Amino acid sequence: MKIGEFLTQSRQQLVCCLPDDHLNAVAKLMFMHNIGAMPVCELQQRMVGIVSERDLVRAFARTDWSELRHIRARDVMTIRIISCGFDDSIRTAQELMRANHIRHLPVLSKDGQVQGMLSMRDTVSLRLQESENEIRVLRDMARAEAIFRSS
Amino acid sequence: MKIGEFLTQSRQQLVCCLPDDHLNAVAKLMFMHNIGAMPVCELQQRMVGIVSERDLVRAFARTDWSELRHIRARDVMTIRIISCGFDDSIRTAQELMRANHIRHLPVLSKDGQVQGMLSMRDTVSLRLQESENEIRVLRDMARAEAIFRSS
Repeated sequence: MKIGEFLTQSRQQLVCCLPDDHLNAVAKLMFMHNIGAMPVCELQQRMVGIVSERDLVRAFARTDWSELRHIRARDVMTIRIISCGFDDSIRTAQELMRANHIRHLPVLSKDGQVQGMLSMRDTVSLRLQESENEIRVLRDMARAEAIFRSS
Repeated sequence: MKIGEFLTQSRQQLVCCLPDDHLNAVAKLMFMHNIGAMPVCELQQRMVGIVSERDLVRAFARTDWSELRHIRARDVMTIRIISCGFDDSIRTAQELMRANHIRHLPVLSKDGQVQGMLSMRDTVSLRLQESENEIRVLRDMARAEAIFRSS
């Protein structure tokens, strides 16, 4: 399956935050939308980084209480952006995540604007579904073969 | 595959926190051990709840900065504990997670002590691996059948 097709099917609502958003605003967005990561975007969906639950936990672990309120998305976000496009396959996306030890992959349009987010969970679930469908077909073929032989 | 077998193979180190641990101590443990959730245990590994990255993000989203430092693991943990045992299968664990909308499942011994944690990612990856192995075997069988027929 192509990533573009998956995004259309899943009707994902893209949630972004601004680089200057404070950490509790970021946490509120993640909590409200039940997501584990989101793109950090300047105006017109130009992505400058990604911020994840794990980035918030890291900030929490490393920062004094008194300083925490001054920290913004730009201070904790990951700026090394690995991305994929609509025409890439789910398998390609999963390999990218595995090779780069990341759990979320932004989907960019040809002009570089962020259009969606793909999670490791999305890709693994989809591949599992594809594999199980293939097993079903192969088992049916084996069963038909056995009936053919015994007749 | 049985859960006990998986835990032995993965050589997982069990990390727990105490109910009275403050949130930054919990975040430090998660960050240091690169985990997304852990059991909250009283003495002798008696589990009283589970705390996850998402629980920390929720606390972050809902609490004033000034109050955050007073919050402890017991205040944010999930106390409705769904668990599995060594003899359960990975498929059973995955069904439990799916049915209860949870991403982590503690593994308990027969006397009720927590022995490990299983994540949705563990179970899905294992099932994917099992499915792909099965596909390989079925494809080999189909190929052998085709050669047999054409000879």
